[in-house]
Amino acid sequence: METGKKIKAGDVRAASRLIRDIEDSVPESKSTIKHLFPYTGKAQVVGITGSPGAGKSTLVDGLIESSRKKEKTVGVLAVDPTSPFTGGATLGDRIRMQRHAEDPGVFIRSLATRGSLGGLSKAVGDAIHVMDAMGKDVIFVETVGTGQQEVEIIHYAHTVLVVLVPGMGDEIQAIKAGIMEIADIFVVNKADREGAGKLQRELMTMIEMSKIPPGGWRPPVLTIGNSFKPEEFAIDIEKLSSKVFEHYEYLVNSEFIGDRLRRKTTHELLEALRVSILEPVMRMLVSTGELNRMVDILMRKESDPCSLSEEVAKKYLQGCL
Amino acid sequence: METGKKIKAGDVRAASRLIRDIEDSVPESKSTIKHLFPYTGKAQVVGITGSPGAGKSTLVDGLIESSRKKEKTVGVLAVDPTSPFTGGATLGDRIRMQRHAEDPGVFIRSLATRGSLGGLSKAVGDAIHVMDAMGKDVIFVETVGTGQQEVEIIHYAHTVLVVLVPGMGDEIQAIKAGIMEIADIFVVNKADREGAGKLQRELMTMIEMSKIPPGGWRPPVLTIGNSFKPEEFAIDIEKLSSKVFEHYEYLVNSEFIGDRLRRKTTHELLEALRVSILEPVMRMLVSTGELNRMVDILMRKESDPCSLSEEVAKKYLQGCL
Repeated sequence: METGKKIKAGDVRAASRLIRDIEDSVPESKSTIKHLFPYTGKAQVVGITGSPGAGKSTLVDGLIESSRKKEKTVGVLAVDPTSPFTGGATLGDRIRMQRHAEDPGVFIRSLATRGSLGGLSKAVGDAIHVMDAMGKDVIFVETVGTGQQEVEIIHYAHTVLVVLVPGMGDEIQAIKAGIMEIADIFVVNKADREGAGKLQRELMTMIEMSKIPPGGWRPPVLTIGNSFKPEEFAIDIEKLSSKVFEHYEYLVNSEFIGDRLRRKTTHELLEALRVSILEPVMRMLVSTGELNRMVDILMRKESDPCSLSEEVAKKYLQGCL
Repeated sequence: METGKKIKAGDVRAASRLIRDIEDSVPESKSTIKHLFPYTGKAQVVGITGSPGAGKSTLVDGLIESSRKKEKTVGVLAVDPTSPFTGGATLGDRIRMQRHAEDPGVFIRSLATRGSLGGLSKAVGDAIHVMDAMGKDVIFVETVGTGQQEVEIIHYAHTVLVVLVPGMGDEIQAIKAGIMEIADIFVVNKADREGAGKLQRELMTMIEMSKIPPGGWRPPVLTIGNSFKPEEFAIDIEKLSSKVFEHYEYLVNSEFIGDRLRRKTTHELLEALRVSILEPVMRMLVSTGELNRMVDILMRKESDPCSLSEEVAKKYLQGCL
């Protein structure tokens, strides 16, 4: 395992190539990932989610800097749906973040949305493992948007940051199901804007109404001011950064760490299962032309999707029907 | 098939019960859906997507009214992620829409996000079939958010409306991959707000830059004014409504209808396959305790997710490995 060894030694080029292979589902990448798995589990994984335009990349940029001051090595994974129209969601922010590219203690990579078999979520999990095996102390995973897929990706994190900005309409309403429930830290970004106080109060009311078990973590609501006022911004980021590491400290020392790790592991296994089970069947259906034939049958209304897919299940599944 | 017959006769109670059963994955619902499939394919399915707070429900409300004036019967399916915190995303709008509840020509139902096996998208497809078999002329499917799941749901539609509002930040950037590419009509909502003209121009530039084949549909960009000015709003909605039906006319008479129907059918089949193949395996893994055992193994780092899920595939798949 030449590649595996290199990655464990922190080799940036080997790690980059493996992450690209993971993204492209290159079959050979599997053996390296298997090899690396026992060397994972040391990094703190921090998920950052929130609406597009909430300023997540700017926060990550600040968190990198603050983490480096604390002498922590950093991995950043930007999960980035690319489109022919936009050419990547937030190119400007990405470029800004690249100022850390010269720092050997920082490793930044992005992953794009591909396919439709739920492969992205698995790719994210694998890419996190790569950075973890490289020895990064903290890995920031930034997701764009608030869709179901983002909710899934966030399951890989120890610490979940939900970033909100005032004046985006009905903020609290707009938060997708599942996100609020798993937030560990709320961030009100661009807090110099009108409505920041109201948003903060709404969040705090919501947290108060939620049932937190004794000894459980009460999600704090932090505000971050205008990033064009560097000194104030740095102070706010510093507070956020401390909270992020405090949460991990809390988790490691609390009885809840087991639950959180189990949730992470279960999620990762389910993603792997989804790919391992669906892919061989789909590949067979496509390569034999069976899929096209079934579509023809459906277009002629000679059968229905449910009956056809039950037939496929009978043909390709064993021992579980 | 007593239930099937009732639904074909337009029975609201039977249809509501079936949709609820679909949502809850009640096994018995399958046979009714199979029975109804040959009676589907007559309705125009219109997908409406856009960011939370873009005013989609208000538009749908207007489109219902306009469609009824054109003597079309209407189905509305609101795909609605519910959360314990919000209790459903847009309760207010939902209530407003209910003013049509007395009209026997209008049938409104919502579907909530459930589970994680991609079951929602299949449920949406099945619920559309129910309304189609009921004989509704047009079915509006409103999705909340711009996640991958919404992109998938929109594949069920003949006509896709993408709703944008000015002043939500970097609107064009924020549009999730896949949505822009499948939009048939762009709607700039709340067009009396600052930035509406700019947004409209950006969209038109984007459309001009995209490659539309000869005879292809060029997505129009329509503006909708303030819904608190009922007369202006009604005029704008009327234009939008006409465009929606014009698009269907175009589709039915164009060479591209085959492609669109094939895409819809393929998507539906893939969703059905996903459920039929994954569910039996997952059920078996959970009921035998195998899933928990595998999580234990992973937590002890005695194996890795990839190897374990390959073993599962070997055990439960046949003829495709």
